Amino acid sequence: MSRRLTIALDAMGGDAAPNMVVRGASIARQRHPEVEFAMFGRAPEIEALLARQKRLAAVTTVVHTDDVVTSEEKPSIALRAGRNSSMRLAINAVRDGTADGVVSAGNTGALMAMAKFVLKTLPGVDRPAIAAFFPTLRGETLMLDLGANVVCDARNLVDFTVMGNAFARCVLGVLNPAYGLLNVGSEELKGHEALHEARAALKEINLPGEFVGFVEGDDIAKGTVDVMVTDGFTGNIALKTAEGTAMLIAEYMRRTFRSSVIAGLGYVLARSAMRKLRKRLDPRQYNGAIFLGLNGIAVKSHGGTDALGFANAIDVAIDMKKYGIIEKTRADFSALLARPAKAEAATG
Amino acid sequence: MSRRLTIALDAMGGDAAPNMVVRGASIARQRHPEVEFAMFGRAPEIEALLARQKRLAAVTTVVHTDDVVTSEEKPSIALRAGRNSSMRLAINAVRDGTADGVVSAGNTGALMAMAKFVLKTLPGVDRPAIAAFFPTLRGETLMLDLGANVVCDARNLVDFTVMGNAFARCVLGVLNPAYGLLNVGSEELKGHEALHEARAALKEINLPGEFVGFVEGDDIAKGTVDVMVTDGFTGNIALKTAEGTAMLIAEYMRRTFRSSVIAGLGYVLARSAMRKLRKRLDPRQYNGAIFLGLNGIAVKSHGGTDALGFANAIDVAIDMKKYGIIEKTRADFSALLARPAKAEAATG
Repeated sequence: MSRRLTIALDAMGGDAAPNMVVRGASIARQRHPEVEFAMFGRAPEIEALLARQKRLAAVTTVVHTDDVVTSEEKPSIALRAGRNSSMRLAINAVRDGTADGVVSAGNTGALMAMAKFVLKTLPGVDRPAIAAFFPTLRGETLMLDLGANVVCDARNLVDFTVMGNAFARCVLGVLNPAYGLLNVGSEELKGHEALHEARAALKEINLPGEFVGFVEGDDIAKGTVDVMVTDGFTGNIALKTAEGTAMLIAEYMRRTFRSSVIAGLGYVLARSAMRKLRKRLDPRQYNGAIFLGLNGIAVKSHGGTDALGFANAIDVAIDMKKYGIIEKTRADFSALLARPAKAEAATG
Repeated sequence: MSRRLTIALDAMGGDAAPNMVVRGASIARQRHPEVEFAMFGRAPEIEALLARQKRLAAVTTVVHTDDVVTSEEKPSIALRAGRNSSMRLAINAVRDGTADGVVSAGNTGALMAMAKFVLKTLPGVDRPAIAAFFPTLRGETLMLDLGANVVCDARNLVDFTVMGNAFARCVLGVLNPAYGLLNVGSEELKGHEALHEARAALKEINLPGEFVGFVEGDDIAKGTVDVMVTDGFTGNIALKTAEGTAMLIAEYMRRTFRSSVIAGLGYVLARSAMRKLRKRLDPRQYNGAIFLGLNGIAVKSHGGTDALGFANAIDVAIDMKKYGIIEKTRADFSALLARPAKAEAATG
């Protein structure tokens, strides 16, 4: 008898939790009628919300806990003191096999620390990474690491590339992904030592798809590659710089259309087109940061998202399970570790 | 007798040189009738262009050389082989005191290497940095380093902060600039060691204005600080990510307005407002990357800019001279070096 797919939800994570989490699960249930949910958190609050969502309630198990990891808590403290938190219990469910993946909109650092501690990394992976999608001229680019590892060596960058490459082929269905390392120029001598070593190792390993080598900051928006790899410091700053720029231009546009009656009238006429544009740039569409390299599926939703954004994060976790990302990544690292060549020195 | 202000121009640098350079100088001359120019490059070409610009020709000296640094040339090669290049001769003019500053739209790496070699750094400055303006919700933010130094230690970050702070007070006229270090979070423990050390040293030094501490990628667009300091690797990627994002949204907008007749009509009505928006986001407006920490004024124009963008880069050089940035920065570093406290350990 094949078990139905179950997603564990940290019902208390996120600015608008648990309401946003329950409503997000309701949207996800409509999209994926085959999925069940396990919600962790304050049962009375969650059950009061579920009372209004009969269909969702029918496929949801609620596990009560009073403990919650706050957004300000330090990851090391959360790891020690949060053993009964909603976040931790949701992660434990994945380890215990009662859930196929966990989604939380809570404290990113705590979620990563707990997921790493509870689920462990896959054999051959030194450190897990956070990946997410960036909108581009040609579709989407998966970028990692976005902040899990502030300082990275060549081995980490190579590992991230293997994980991202596996994700692109397996979950996104890109048979021959183009992939590259984010740098300050495309020439071989640009950048620092870790990038030079990682480039050499990746040439040697020769993953499926096309290794483009070094790519630059504007290649993110151009969509030059399917998978872009960088250290967590640079990735975090690139992500927030892109978000900030989009916010700035949106604000300029608002001011522009309010600057005169004629411009305002123009906006009214262009409204449906503008709505399409807004939808295209909607950050909720890109919600769901993926933890890669772990022996289990974990997805981080933006803390400030709404139900629709949270449902999209649940989608990501479901896709990862359906397309077997863990098995795929495990197999790719096994193959890599079995290589006796130079590549092993760089990645093992 | 007070000498007029003279700007040395590398007439051969940039995609559309020397035409763009001469036309840019012509625009700058109209804005600053008191300024003279020294143009370095192929005299026949330059003089043919000047023949159509009588007023500019009257305040311009042309120095002939056949040698040009190409955009692909490695900085180390350009430094050795380019001793008679238009770029090098223009920089020499600043060292020799026949010009007050140099502007080039040529090879950035070569320009920095030559400027550093010829002009030297100011006493107390280990490495010069590249700074530029980013548009923000509240005006503009000066950010440095944007690529001169791929790897930076705490001392470099402190030096960059001193230079940027001096620039904000002296050239921008911000009496109490807010300044901060770009990081992956605002909390004290975020980021890597060099950032922690730099933060501690800057608290100790206590420059004029307000030290905000750590700021994040989205603080660039928010305009949280007047001066944002980072290493050249991160700065380069933030700059290009912001440019890429702006390009992506502009392209989405084009597609949006072309998506229907009604939307197109809306665009026509909103056109003058849209033109204002485009002007606000015009990269030419932010053209002119400033080399700080050198014993002389050097400004790098974007290689692909037009005459208007080049004129704006000339403006930056003129402002730097008028407001005495070299003297100001020199004085600030002298004061810093004279301090016997902990700060000296971090910056000396």
